[in-house]
Amino acid sequence: MNAASATQPVRVVDIIRRKRDGGELARREIEHLVAAYTRGDVPDYQVAAWLMAVVLRGMTRVELAALTESMLRSGEVLDLSELPAVKVDKHSTGGVGDKTSLVLAPLVAAGGLIVPMISGRGLGHTGGTLDKLESIPGFNVNLETADFRRVLRACGCAMIGQTAAIAPADKKLYALRDVTGTVESPYLICASIMSKKLAEGIGALVLDVKTGSGAFMKNEDDAAFLAELMVATGERMGKKMVALLTDMDQPLGRHVGNALEVEECLEVLRGGGPDDLRELCLELAGWMFHLGGSDAGVEKGKQRAAALLASGAALDKFRAMVELQGGDAAALDDVARLPRARRTAVVPSPREGFVASIQCEQVGTASVVLGGGRERKEDAVDPAVGIVLHKKVRDRVTAGEPLCTLHYNSDEKLSAARSLIERSYRIDPQPPAATGPLVRRIVRGAGEGS
Amino acid sequence: MNAASATQPVRVVDIIRRKRDGGELARREIEHLVAAYTRGDVPDYQVAAWLMAVVLRGMTRVELAALTESMLRSGEVLDLSELPAVKVDKHSTGGVGDKTSLVLAPLVAAGGLIVPMISGRGLGHTGGTLDKLESIPGFNVNLETADFRRVLRACGCAMIGQTAAIAPADKKLYALRDVTGTVESPYLICASIMSKKLAEGIGALVLDVKTGSGAFMKNEDDAAFLAELMVATGERMGKKMVALLTDMDQPLGRHVGNALEVEECLEVLRGGGPDDLRELCLELAGWMFHLGGSDAGVEKGKQRAAALLASGAALDKFRAMVELQGGDAAALDDVARLPRARRTAVVPSPREGFVASIQCEQVGTASVVLGGGRERKEDAVDPAVGIVLHKKVRDRVTAGEPLCTLHYNSDEKLSAARSLIERSYRIDPQPPAATGPLVRRIVRGAGEGS
Repeated sequence: MNAASATQPVRVVDIIRRKRDGGELARREIEHLVAAYTRGDVPDYQVAAWLMAVVLRGMTRVELAALTESMLRSGEVLDLSELPAVKVDKHSTGGVGDKTSLVLAPLVAAGGLIVPMISGRGLGHTGGTLDKLESIPGFNVNLETADFRRVLRACGCAMIGQTAAIAPADKKLYALRDVTGTVESPYLICASIMSKKLAEGIGALVLDVKTGSGAFMKNEDDAAFLAELMVATGERMGKKMVALLTDMDQPLGRHVGNALEVEECLEVLRGGGPDDLRELCLELAGWMFHLGGSDAGVEKGKQRAAALLASGAALDKFRAMVELQGGDAAALDDVARLPRARRTAVVPSPREGFVASIQCEQVGTASVVLGGGRERKEDAVDPAVGIVLHKKVRDRVTAGEPLCTLHYNSDEKLSAARSLIERSYRIDPQPPAATGPLVRRIVRGAGEGS
Repeated sequence: MNAASATQPVRVVDIIRRKRDGGELARREIEHLVAAYTRGDVPDYQVAAWLMAVVLRGMTRVELAALTESMLRSGEVLDLSELPAVKVDKHSTGGVGDKTSLVLAPLVAAGGLIVPMISGRGLGHTGGTLDKLESIPGFNVNLETADFRRVLRACGCAMIGQTAAIAPADKKLYALRDVTGTVESPYLICASIMSKKLAEGIGALVLDVKTGSGAFMKNEDDAAFLAELMVATGERMGKKMVALLTDMDQPLGRHVGNALEVEECLEVLRGGGPDDLRELCLELAGWMFHLGGSDAGVEKGKQRAAALLASGAALDKFRAMVELQGGDAAALDDVARLPRARRTAVVPSPREGFVASIQCEQVGTASVVLGGGRERKEDAVDPAVGIVLHKKVRDRVTAGEPLCTLHYNSDEKLSAARSLIERSYRIDPQPPAATGPLVRRIVRGAGEGS
């Protein structure tokens, strides 16, 4: 037997060596490592060596579930049993213009489910839900647990940031991974995401795993592998799970940047908005309703979601949540109240033809360069700046016709961003082959046959 | 190109990631990592992650040479150019009863070469040259560089421990490897050994790489791989190199334990001693003479070594060195002056037959248990205790005939050691197949054709 017997004391160096040699760790060994590290009883250098061994050796599904649970249990797990409705959430691995959370939370709450959404900030070239919400004047994402509950009770959805009480092991491990070259492991990514999401006390989770030039996982098979790990891990912990692999070869929708994205979400909540964004919101909401058990099948769920957008019920829910979290609800009806950049600049097409591709990560980086994201953790974001795309892949353009409009507050930043945008568009004389579907694959849980 | 360009600043996390992904590091990146870590400018956790990546990804020969040189140059490199003779040394990877250094240093110095030997202490189940030397009353292994030089000038050999000035990077890295499960890498073992040995300012090095049940590398192919790495690394740095893979499936000679091993070395220096020990000393000395350039071929070197033992010249040299390093030279002629255990106990054979095998690591561990080695670094060793083997592999025994005599100072320790010894001997009714040769393979340098 590889795993240590239950009566022996656990030695961290033996745990490291076994993983190094490709062996399987016992649950109690993983629990010990995570708990002792979180307490400060195991030094960073031992955990760094172990993390690198995990990156290069991988984990079994059983080990991964033990790691995720140990990280989850390092902190508070919300008990929302006082609220009778099913609790459901969505998580995205991050993309450019990926703003569905702002639509989905009120939309699914309008359908009677509870959405206790704990989100993150922008990372690298991708935006973050918290940064977007904070562009609504007064909106407070830093609620304590009691206030989070209060908002959930009042309107069925609430959107906050990770509190210190949630998965402290993940915070500590993530900071170490960042400086030890151990970020890029599907196992460690899975444990990090799932330990935070499952702290929400939800019964079902829909994962939006991005793939393509604007995603962290550029390769579709890598994304599918991560999706399978997360679905398997969630199911082991008794959650209803599904993962949608969705396209991130170009930005989602037309707006990239915090206030600009809020504006586009409001269009969707009013029943409009760009096709791809609206379609993905309906798809994800359909699955949330389906897994939440309030509809028979994903299609029924999508129809219900479309009706809630058309009736204005989802927008009303969003307005209620914004008010409950201290935001200026009037800004939802008068977007001039949202932060606005002082200047705009158009990037014209250099020639006639068709948009063959948009290097999506560069568009995200251009938004960061304008001030819409962070180069370092401690940077402040400029909520007003960003990019509006007038042309997307397969669109026809004439020479000089605007491809994008940049919203900016600094000439210096404009020139760097403009050059990134110019290089990100490829214009060909012939239209490109048809783009793939928005949802490329669906990874279902074992308990989810349909 | 994988390696960073020479004009960019080096980021440690990028070095870690490149090694993690199986890429090759540039010399200046390795130099930076080692120098900055030694200075304390790179934290343990980053180096721990890098070490684990090296364990699992390996290194190219070019990377390994850069690592070894960086570690070597982290400290003082002896310049012995004032001494006209060729400087040569031998290094063993460690075994049980492996005491050849005490014979070789004076023997080869008696032949006119300079042997500036820097040795280590017992590690795990193996003994250490310094511990053995210190069983000679008064012998001082802690010489400063100036005194080391003085002894070398006076008698041609000197035997000391690693000073703080030698390869401090190795000291720091070794301590980290010990607690992060990154000891067992042939690349890291090679760099550690070679960085210390090459600090001696030698021109040629003979490696005795042990393989078998009492060696760290039990598997012969693993030992051969390590031997090849060390030979290639030394050659890249301009040294004449050879490695002998030698048998450690049973203890070398008949004595295990510090003072007991000194006693056995004196037998060899007087022209006697057990066959295997004497044979290996002649073999290694033959290569040292050959690489040192003072003889035409290894066979000639062996003959010369045999003559120096027979004439007493080697013993005289040993006596001179012991005196120069403060030791009681009278103990060499009257071994009753060496530390002696208060009691002895015989382990008899349980049956008639032939010794089929001796689990060699257990014999080493038995000696450690008696007090002859260290369980923790800070433990003191008992120079007097140990084991004398009366029977070795293929020897015939009758029931009740002594297999070993244990020399001990504590009843409690005796019982633990006795049980290890009893389990280490296998007695079969038929004699075992012939044992393999003492020297199993010779790994020659490219510049060493003969």
